[in-house]
Amino acid sequence: MNLQQKLDAIVEKNNSLLCVGLDPVEEKLSGQSFFEFNKSIIDVTHDLVCAYKPNSAFYEALGDRGVKELKMTCDYLRENHPEIPIIIDAKRADIGNTNEGYAKYIFDYLQADGVTLQPYLGKEAIQPFLDKIDKGIIILCRTSNPGAGEFQDLQINGEPLYMHVAKNVVEKWNTNNNCMLVVGATYPEELKQIRNVVGNMNLLVPGIGTQGGDIEKSLQAGMTKDKKGILLSTSRTVIFAQNPREEALKLRDEINTYR
Amino acid sequence: MNLQQKLDAIVEKNNSLLCVGLDPVEEKLSGQSFFEFNKSIIDVTHDLVCAYKPNSAFYEALGDRGVKELKMTCDYLRENHPEIPIIIDAKRADIGNTNEGYAKYIFDYLQADGVTLQPYLGKEAIQPFLDKIDKGIIILCRTSNPGAGEFQDLQINGEPLYMHVAKNVVEKWNTNNNCMLVVGATYPEELKQIRNVVGNMNLLVPGIGTQGGDIEKSLQAGMTKDKKGILLSTSRTVIFAQNPREEALKLRDEINTYR
Repeated sequence: MNLQQKLDAIVEKNNSLLCVGLDPVEEKLSGQSFFEFNKSIIDVTHDLVCAYKPNSAFYEALGDRGVKELKMTCDYLRENHPEIPIIIDAKRADIGNTNEGYAKYIFDYLQADGVTLQPYLGKEAIQPFLDKIDKGIIILCRTSNPGAGEFQDLQINGEPLYMHVAKNVVEKWNTNNNCMLVVGATYPEELKQIRNVVGNMNLLVPGIGTQGGDIEKSLQAGMTKDKKGILLSTSRTVIFAQNPREEALKLRDEINTYR
Repeated sequence: MNLQQKLDAIVEKNNSLLCVGLDPVEEKLSGQSFFEFNKSIIDVTHDLVCAYKPNSAFYEALGDRGVKELKMTCDYLRENHPEIPIIIDAKRADIGNTNEGYAKYIFDYLQADGVTLQPYLGKEAIQPFLDKIDKGIIILCRTSNPGAGEFQDLQINGEPLYMHVAKNVVEKWNTNNNCMLVVGATYPEELKQIRNVVGNMNLLVPGIGTQGGDIEKSLQAGMTKDKKGILLSTSRTVIFAQNPREEALKLRDEINTYR
């Protein structure tokens, strides 16, 4: 089953467009290991999410020990909740032969379903990822950070760079029908523009919660006609909540009021 | 001592602009560990190089085990050759708070001197790296791969995107005087254009050797007036040579004939 099919099934089953970022930091964990912490989040949210998205940076911060905790987290998810997609937020990209190494990390070692990638080196460089027909290859288009526009907004033939990225991915990169785009919830206008050119492509939309992205605006701007096609992602708001289940439930249901 | 000073000293001491990429792959190592292999390369080339540049992808391919081998390699270099800069070719970039994780990986765990980064998210995002005043923050400008131009060549106000990256880094990002740029040896014309706007900034120039970049053209296009300012990087050509020392010596000396 490829990521697209897995997503369709879980969105239906859990009635959810909520993606939870598993992004632990030692200072907030009072001695728990990253794996134990993640397990505690997964155990109380697995029926409320459409995907989990660990960001590799938080694990690499601890070196090999952290990378192992990430693998344990992925193993636990696969064994106990094989129906839930695992997206590694890694924002990688290198030249072709080097990307084979990253692809091994994401798809052989972690055995994840999808990965986020940088567009700057072009399609030719990330072909080793695009060749993974069962996986989700999720390209940064419009990022959620305040300074995202420095290059992404530069105008080229009357359109900003991020629109060129969106169009190239849709028209040229997506031959295996396995591409998605990252568009920040903090930029609903841009999200709407992007939806207009990408058809039914799934969009990973981080930035609700702590970063301030608006749920209603993001959904109105980014959903497909059948009220899907978008994964709204939050990390800190759920995982560091007093009651992560309650927070995830609240977010899932709030999202569903706009569908 | 910051990376700039470290580079100046080692370029002088080893009379070298050659950077060697430590990029092992299991299929070529006949049972040696990555660390043992790297040690064998370091032991016979340390007096011939101006930097070592391990690419994180090759280590991550093995998961936590590979990341540990990378750390052992960095530890060995620091303990035995503290005068040689370690540049981690990681091509990272995420939003601000997440970059703290990557910065910990590179500068606390691996204790490297420099790191390569993606420009797409803008200065605001990578500020946690730019704040490391003693480190080298090395931004992808024009990458060495054949398809680099897909976005990097897009024209914005009469200049390609990569020139906007070069100018922004020089004029706005480099307030701590710790920035460098990556420019592929496979694009000497672009390298020349970039040198024209970046003053004496050090450029990391990969792509000589297996990728086909021309040494003479790269040097003529990229050196500063005092015949420095460029780190010519190769990996496979040296590390998988029959005799890595001989190959490194040949390359160092060939480079020096054009200085």
